[in-house]
Amino acid sequence: MTIFVGSDHNGIELKKEVIEYLNRSGYSVVDEGDNKLDPQDDFPVFASRVVTAMRSSNDLDSKGVLICGSGQGMCMAANRFKGIRASLCWNEKEARSARNDDDSNVLCLSAKSTTKKESELILNIWLNTAFAKAPRFVRRLKELDDLG
Amino acid sequence: MTIFVGSDHNGIELKKEVIEYLNRSGYSVVDEGDNKLDPQDDFPVFASRVVTAMRSSNDLDSKGVLICGSGQGMCMAANRFKGIRASLCWNEKEARSARNDDDSNVLCLSAKSTTKKESELILNIWLNTAFAKAPRFVRRLKELDDLG
Repeated sequence: MTIFVGSDHNGIELKKEVIEYLNRSGYSVVDEGDNKLDPQDDFPVFASRVVTAMRSSNDLDSKGVLICGSGQGMCMAANRFKGIRASLCWNEKEARSARNDDDSNVLCLSAKSTTKKESELILNIWLNTAFAKAPRFVRRLKELDDLG
Repeated sequence: MTIFVGSDHNGIELKKEVIEYLNRSGYSVVDEGDNKLDPQDDFPVFASRVVTAMRSSNDLDSKGVLICGSGQGMCMAANRFKGIRASLCWNEKEARSARNDDDSNVLCLSAKSTTKKESELILNIWLNTAFAKAPRFVRRLKELDDLG
């Protein structure tokens, strides 16, 4: 599975740690930036890059991780795109539910509220929880695809 | 200011309490359902109703509150719509940031992770924090509008 990772300036430090953790855990990781600390960079640019890369990867299992100060802007931006189900998760319970119920394919993290250790616990659950595929969950995601 | 509130079955109890709190606090509230406890109801239906009502209200300050089990599905669904900036907030810090930085106009709450008291604290901050309108924030929200 390939994981595309992106952040704005607020998320650069946590992104670096997330990428190290994912590499240690055996995932193929692509860093979509930002790679310089520019306070004037904009989160929608990096959300768009990660989503575009996921779509171009020809890997149905590809996933994305997006980090900004609060994670909120990234979550708004990624969910603009059909087929993207972005979830801002702040603990393992949320990560499990986002995968199990909602088949989340983009994880958003808050650099200002999530420690390195917490991000590793969240990533571990998020990457290792399968979508439950209950008929009601599948129906809801189909309805989600028809919105907007 | 009018606040449109919606939930799936998992959020019905918390929605009732949120509406009581908003009424006590002097807001005009419209309940967009669900109003019966139907485990087969679907969160995208209620996200769509709230967003449609906000758009039809001719009130630029109108806001929405969406509640489901985790809040994640509602946040995915609401952010499918251009002009909607939905934020899943689990504490006051996140609520303040979502308004100050991202001009959030839909608050998503997790019925399974948020108590009645916590939801009141979150709502109070979310409703009383103004968008900071810093040029970089305004620019990012404009970029957000161009996505998807």
